[in-house]
Amino acid sequence: MDMSAYPLLEGIDEPAHLRELPEGQLPRLASQLREYLLASVARSGGHLAAGLGAVELTVALHYVLDTPFDRLVWDVGHQCYPHKILTGRRREIGRIRKVDGPAGFPSRDESVYDTFGVGHSSTSISAALGMALASSNQDITRKTCAVIGDGGLTAGEAFEALNHAGDVRPDLLVILNDNEMSISENVGALNKTFARLLSGGVYGNVREEAKNMLERMPGPMREFAKRAEEHVKGMLVPGTFFEELGFQYFGPVDGHDLDELIPVLQRLRELDGPRILHCVTRKGKGYARAEANPIAYHGVKAFDPAAGLKASNEAAPLNYTDVFSQWLCDIAKADERVWGITPAMREGSGLVDFANQYPERYLDTAIAEQHAVTLAAGLACEGEKPVLAIYSTFLQRGYDQLIHDVTLQNLPVVFALDRAGLVGADGATHQGAFDFSFMRCLPNMTVMAPADERECRQMLSTAISLDGPSSVRYPKGRGPGTMPDESLEGLPVGQAEVRRRGEGVALLAFGSMVAPAEAVGEALNATVVNMRFVRPLDEDCLREIAETHAQLITLEENVVAGGAGSAVAEALARLNIQLPILHIGLPDTYVQHGERDEQLEMVGLDTTGIHQRITTWLGHEVASTLVSD
Amino acid sequence: MDMSAYPLLEGIDEPAHLRELPEGQLPRLASQLREYLLASVARSGGHLAAGLGAVELTVALHYVLDTPFDRLVWDVGHQCYPHKILTGRRREIGRIRKVDGPAGFPSRDESVYDTFGVGHSSTSISAALGMALASSNQDITRKTCAVIGDGGLTAGEAFEALNHAGDVRPDLLVILNDNEMSISENVGALNKTFARLLSGGVYGNVREEAKNMLERMPGPMREFAKRAEEHVKGMLVPGTFFEELGFQYFGPVDGHDLDELIPVLQRLRELDGPRILHCVTRKGKGYARAEANPIAYHGVKAFDPAAGLKASNEAAPLNYTDVFSQWLCDIAKADERVWGITPAMREGSGLVDFANQYPERYLDTAIAEQHAVTLAAGLACEGEKPVLAIYSTFLQRGYDQLIHDVTLQNLPVVFALDRAGLVGADGATHQGAFDFSFMRCLPNMTVMAPADERECRQMLSTAISLDGPSSVRYPKGRGPGTMPDESLEGLPVGQAEVRRRGEGVALLAFGSMVAPAEAVGEALNATVVNMRFVRPLDEDCLREIAETHAQLITLEENVVAGGAGSAVAEALARLNIQLPILHIGLPDTYVQHGERDEQLEMVGLDTTGIHQRITTWLGHEVASTLVSD
Repeated sequence: MDMSAYPLLEGIDEPAHLRELPEGQLPRLASQLREYLLASVARSGGHLAAGLGAVELTVALHYVLDTPFDRLVWDVGHQCYPHKILTGRRREIGRIRKVDGPAGFPSRDESVYDTFGVGHSSTSISAALGMALASSNQDITRKTCAVIGDGGLTAGEAFEALNHAGDVRPDLLVILNDNEMSISENVGALNKTFARLLSGGVYGNVREEAKNMLERMPGPMREFAKRAEEHVKGMLVPGTFFEELGFQYFGPVDGHDLDELIPVLQRLRELDGPRILHCVTRKGKGYARAEANPIAYHGVKAFDPAAGLKASNEAAPLNYTDVFSQWLCDIAKADERVWGITPAMREGSGLVDFANQYPERYLDTAIAEQHAVTLAAGLACEGEKPVLAIYSTFLQRGYDQLIHDVTLQNLPVVFALDRAGLVGADGATHQGAFDFSFMRCLPNMTVMAPADERECRQMLSTAISLDGPSSVRYPKGRGPGTMPDESLEGLPVGQAEVRRRGEGVALLAFGSMVAPAEAVGEALNATVVNMRFVRPLDEDCLREIAETHAQLITLEENVVAGGAGSAVAEALARLNIQLPILHIGLPDTYVQHGERDEQLEMVGLDTTGIHQRITTWLGHEVASTLVSD
Repeated sequence: MDMSAYPLLEGIDEPAHLRELPEGQLPRLASQLREYLLASVARSGGHLAAGLGAVELTVALHYVLDTPFDRLVWDVGHQCYPHKILTGRRREIGRIRKVDGPAGFPSRDESVYDTFGVGHSSTSISAALGMALASSNQDITRKTCAVIGDGGLTAGEAFEALNHAGDVRPDLLVILNDNEMSISENVGALNKTFARLLSGGVYGNVREEAKNMLERMPGPMREFAKRAEEHVKGMLVPGTFFEELGFQYFGPVDGHDLDELIPVLQRLRELDGPRILHCVTRKGKGYARAEANPIAYHGVKAFDPAAGLKASNEAAPLNYTDVFSQWLCDIAKADERVWGITPAMREGSGLVDFANQYPERYLDTAIAEQHAVTLAAGLACEGEKPVLAIYSTFLQRGYDQLIHDVTLQNLPVVFALDRAGLVGADGATHQGAFDFSFMRCLPNMTVMAPADERECRQMLSTAISLDGPSSVRYPKGRGPGTMPDESLEGLPVGQAEVRRRGEGVALLAFGSMVAPAEAVGEALNATVVNMRFVRPLDEDCLREIAETHAQLITLEENVVAGGAGSAVAEALARLNIQLPILHIGLPDTYVQHGERDEQLEMVGLDTTGIHQRITTWLGHEVASTLVSD
């Protein structure tokens, strides 16, 4: 990018350069950083609004802290782009989230300035506490700082960490970046408390009044007031919550005013013990369109900053999320017991229409996956039909609740697992690579994966009709294009579907792998089975196929270890059938960012890769032409 | 049990009978209930101190609420014995936690009064919120009440649920049963806040003083004070925390004084919205020995109430927890970077000695598994060597953190997984049935299971020497008795050990199954391999064994689905070796309570069961005599 518009920024190849600037130049640097960020993300796509809101905070933190010696931990990481730009990755930022570019989140492999890899929210205080304790044990005097949003604060782990840190009292600074947003509007009672207290500038006036009041008190009352000092503060600022958790509370300060921010941070740097600075920022700050619509500008595709985001094309083909969204509205219309639940992912999970049409049965729990799962179990106890819309990767956060509260009690909760398999640009932290493995080992659970959009709807209808827990896992984006009709009919449980009869080798494909398996099956004249159910597996079909074929190949968009193919192998052992079997699935590594198609190709799960893998394994070349990928 | 000492209690076969009593009789009933509970648990063993502390609360709740129409949800459930006694299970309580007796925790299968099955802490508010919302949707006017301890409140899910409930504002009563204890002493900053404010009766005096103060204020200040009313309360009582979460706070009240408790509950019953009653109770109340030592009396074996618990036999053979405990102290002595971390299970996890000897490297996070895992990752980032001692079943609570914060970043955190496999009397909720399945699918993870005590120590030493994450999972109680020496030498990674050479069939055993496999191997003249590593699996050994035997049998104390045997099958597929294989492991159900030996027998994982299973599968009877079980 032409740097002539960003002369100050051009000189910053690492934070040490930033610290050489006179303080008076920092607002100009921040301004250039913001412009650069906007121009860059407008070209590359990526997370925008959170970064715009964190520009001054990022400048101030690297100015005041001696990074990387001092430890700076960003929560979630949507807001890390300015940090990446200032820490030696300015030139690379234009390729963020691309195969050969930086990750969209802080990553320890990428830079010493990325002290902790993140992607899911609310881990920063825990990690920073560990780092601060390590410093003590190593007799190193360094500062440790975690930056967490008010959205991230709603997840239980953040509370656990505050409660622990307030007890062990390390040298730890927590910055609450309060922009009243998670990815959607933030919800939860605590958020309302923040908002109420920040609104109308009440706190400033009240602070003065109260000070006067205390001074005018008679002797014994002043004595009492002294003892109760920290609680008096609770009348004035929203700090009582944190002080009851053992933190010294400072703020709120304007997180866009470097003249206010830097002196406060410098003072806080010199203190010890657990302390929290409440910074008020605005998501999308400095780009009017993003300020006005921070949800739309949270994550963007490339766009023209002068024109803003283009209105979405109404005629676009439905993706899996849309299919789910439509189904949920339809089933909720047909059955008043149906609820839609999301842990803070209304837009991403396709709950916008449902939330509008059935607000009384819509629950956004905030970022609180554990609670969301148990809440669904509680509803199910009373005969309601909760549907939890959750990304595969986030269900990992509610695993014990899935086990105890749902499967152990055999309660009919439907898990609509979006973004299962490879997720594209969000990369390693967001891959839905393990859900077959961690779900199919659970008694009472039904695990389904649709081959196409039509089947997705059928499986959701199957799920809601069951007396026990179930999941339907579907990939990010669009499927093969076989669109559902309006029916709410389900599929027979545990029944696979033979899609193609061939000879010799049979491909047993799960979910997203059915389409490429069909293409490869054509080329190899192989039998292709759409397995549909990982649990219960169709053992009758499997026996018949195994007895009539020489080799089996399982295909899934999940790691091989313990996955759906592994379930096939277990079933073959039970059936006492021996034949060569090849398990094709995600590799035993964390797959990095890139486009979903690129990732599928990288791991060999595109049609070409699968074909090659199979022919190599079969030990012979197949001359027939591949149908196009 | 002779009921002549409990005449009032004898008439209570369900809570409706209780509600027919005049209020004045309730203290006598409570007294009889306490005596009955003590006498019963002293005979049967089980959880004692928590129940003793909840006697009046249980009586009062069933008196005021219209159970089971009104919904009463107990958190964790250690305190549920008085509830079970009053809800038709008085006669059965003497066989609690036995195979044919009631479960040690509330269980929906057992009684309509057990509205939600529990076992792990901090789910009650979430579940109760779901129930309350269901009532609204069904236009049913009922009361919903969750009872949670101050220990349970430290886990993030409880906070998530409070934050959500405070926002959606259901008709929900939360009882905070504050006894300043979890199983160990409670830790965490919030707990200190409670304790400080409750101590010295400050709150009572201050409440009056403050009231006077407010009345004497000048006009404008009174106006301000009115607006800030709820925060003024924060000066007086520890309720601000809850009020900032949207709850109306009441209390504290003496949870053992029915004259105080019942009117308060009756008043609270009539209110609407989210409200919390802070009850102060004493764990072990009414039995002096338990009050003095609530940790020892948390869970007990049968004992004589007149004499108290017997001092433990110092010469008892070491169990696995002891082996871990000793190793941790030894390795901490040898290496100053070693830390011991527990989420509130110091005694159960064998950290008492370590905590005494290395208090500066000992961390009790409170009930906060998510935080504990990320905290360990943070320490590991800085070159420290954290060891997280955690029951298999509780690691489920930190699964996403295990994935993201530890394995994705390939950080050297050691997971010492106690109580892996069947756990005896704690039953279904506490079985460590899934850890092989949910851990072995994770890239970078090393998964080990020792055959005996000596190997347990060797594997822990192996684990701490690795550059990446690892786990050693060992069962509850004692092993075969091969005791460790003082060495801190590890084992070669990924190397199995052939324990016995036989013919025809080979038994591939993991961890606790090695000992019975050896016995069965003797009887069948089978080869027996101690596999040691689930991940990485010893494929060289496997190939050699597979090529020289006609059948393979895998044995593990984990569910078969996705477990260690499944890993063997996957490896065989990779090696392109076909032969009959039998997977023996835990069944695809939730195994109920009983003695561990009884459970192993029930599921066919004792020597006899394994022998029968194998001979049946092999299709022939074996004449040779079994070595004794």
